[in-house]
Amino acid sequence: MNRSSAAPRLLDGFSWAPGPFIGPLIGAIVAASTAAFAQTAPALREVPARSVPVPDTVSSQMQKIIAAPFTPTWNVIPNTADEWKAQVNAGAAAIVGTLPALREQLHVKVEPQVIDGVKTFAATPEKLPVQNRNRLLIHVHGGCYVSNPGESGTVEAILMAGLGGFKVISVDYRMPPDAPYPAALDDAMTVWKAAVKMTEPKNMAIFGTSAGGALTLSMVLRAKQEDLPLPGAIAVGTPMSDLTGRGDSFVTNAMLDNVLVAYGASCDKRAALYANGHDLKDPLLSPVYGDMHGFPPAILTTGTRDLLLSNTVRVHRKLRQAGVEAVLQVFEGQSHAQYLRDANAPETKDAIGEIAHFLDKHLGK
Amino acid sequence: MNRSSAAPRLLDGFSWAPGPFIGPLIGAIVAASTAAFAQTAPALREVPARSVPVPDTVSSQMQKIIAAPFTPTWNVIPNTADEWKAQVNAGAAAIVGTLPALREQLHVKVEPQVIDGVKTFAATPEKLPVQNRNRLLIHVHGGCYVSNPGESGTVEAILMAGLGGFKVISVDYRMPPDAPYPAALDDAMTVWKAAVKMTEPKNMAIFGTSAGGALTLSMVLRAKQEDLPLPGAIAVGTPMSDLTGRGDSFVTNAMLDNVLVAYGASCDKRAALYANGHDLKDPLLSPVYGDMHGFPPAILTTGTRDLLLSNTVRVHRKLRQAGVEAVLQVFEGQSHAQYLRDANAPETKDAIGEIAHFLDKHLGK
Repeated sequence: MNRSSAAPRLLDGFSWAPGPFIGPLIGAIVAASTAAFAQTAPALREVPARSVPVPDTVSSQMQKIIAAPFTPTWNVIPNTADEWKAQVNAGAAAIVGTLPALREQLHVKVEPQVIDGVKTFAATPEKLPVQNRNRLLIHVHGGCYVSNPGESGTVEAILMAGLGGFKVISVDYRMPPDAPYPAALDDAMTVWKAAVKMTEPKNMAIFGTSAGGALTLSMVLRAKQEDLPLPGAIAVGTPMSDLTGRGDSFVTNAMLDNVLVAYGASCDKRAALYANGHDLKDPLLSPVYGDMHGFPPAILTTGTRDLLLSNTVRVHRKLRQAGVEAVLQVFEGQSHAQYLRDANAPETKDAIGEIAHFLDKHLGK
Repeated sequence: MNRSSAAPRLLDGFSWAPGPFIGPLIGAIVAASTAAFAQTAPALREVPARSVPVPDTVSSQMQKIIAAPFTPTWNVIPNTADEWKAQVNAGAAAIVGTLPALREQLHVKVEPQVIDGVKTFAATPEKLPVQNRNRLLIHVHGGCYVSNPGESGTVEAILMAGLGGFKVISVDYRMPPDAPYPAALDDAMTVWKAAVKMTEPKNMAIFGTSAGGALTLSMVLRAKQEDLPLPGAIAVGTPMSDLTGRGDSFVTNAMLDNVLVAYGASCDKRAALYANGHDLKDPLLSPVYGDMHGFPPAILTTGTRDLLLSNTVRVHRKLRQAGVEAVLQVFEGQSHAQYLRDANAPETKDAIGEIAHFLDKHLGK
């Protein structure tokens, strides 16, 4: 793995003092992780330990999500490909069990569809608003490039179809351990090339969250490289835009974000499987380093506790500096991608509603 | 003081463990502050102590600002009106000493001007861009409602005149300990009422940071109440939008923000002098509780380490939910209002440039 030696590492600089609400198991994991890394970065601000309450400035649904314990597998790292698949499949099965109710509630139909050899799912709202008849969204799911295979990757597509009223094709791209970089991006580009023959590019958007946010940006970079048509807009949710570990919130929001929890843990281990030894500073892996001139209008979404807060706002600034129309929404108290957790949370409707509004404003009809 | 009993208080839940980089003086202050407040909020996430490095994702100028120690007076609370004035005057004198060089560098002329009995400063760029000839910005400075009297309150006005190319009138509003709420707001409204007779309201914006961001919002709320014309746009920098202490980043960014440092310290003590016993939930004191329907287009600015990050993004969401065109910019690694600290930092030019661009887009000519 080609990680920059200057980058902050997992739990750098933490003086671990387990509090009463942290279980001994997690304490042991963190202690082991801390011991495994040297303290290299200059320590310039000593922030004391603290007990952080759930904010009362979010909905009751979001309070539950914020109060949840750390993702159980946040730092559980399988040793073999089979162990990875077992972990991934267990996570996927849990999600897939929730999908029939979600689709029914949001009146969305989902059908598998193979496009030029790439597996996809078409998510279609029962009632397609007239202004969206000739529009199509391409979705690239999240999961740190390893998780959410098959139907389990369709949650965000269902939300966008149901709450946003768009036809969506969600790309079930190949993933590690079987298929590292650039398989996922290749698959997404195959679908994009097919899509531009079906629908006017200016009537289409690409969107995704986390790894899907980074893939959205990488798809535009690659479309530019290959002189392909660009979409009319993109929606980039808290993107894994910098795999090298740069970004202040990797440190400031560590152990506060209850989804990713800390840099260098499971999500980054999965991303490393994807990168498979390639230079992590390659813009197709860390799109914050890409040239964003000529990008289509973009809406970015993150939360104040998001481990990737910095890497979302860095992309926003970079887009603006390149003259791109780009807007940012930051949700109070939310950790990584929690605006996708509960279709009934007002914050979910707000986030997806804003994205749908932005796409409606910028897409052709 | 009418502070909500449910609100988090200074350093609630901190288990103070002084690190090697914190001086004994600050340690003693914090220990005393911690002892002074009971732990009332439910503690649901235990975040360990950490040493946070200066991010390498910002300019060298901004790195210096981020690396600076805490504001020396962040928790130094005078006991008498005279002591307050001495502290405020010392701070003001230090700023005033820097102003001639700033004005010269940015080619801005500043002249005192009394408008209907209210002291103001007119800041004018040497070369006024043709599109800004008939435009005027009204500036309300920050300083927690007590600091930055006289010329010391003109820094942001000079930056906007010099980097943005606008004519600015900066309101030198009355402040505590002599003049509590609503004196500042009254003075600002007096200037606004005079301004709408000089210039088309749609050609004008109101802007300010911190207390000035809150005053900007309160001026629009009050203009709505009094059926006065509204400005064509507003620029709201990290507003003190909620004096009641609600907002997740009051806790999550405590002791990380090196400007305000923690809720309940000097800035909030100054705001309490301003509130002077009035209900802190009054929207004219805590504008996040105001009705924002009909507000003009707004641009909001904050930083990822800002103690008021939450209270900026909460206002942004509230504006959007009221159907207002509102955009948000969040700067990597910055604590409270650090985009105003160094006219030579690229981030300052970026922040002010974005604000100027937004105003240019929305103001009449």
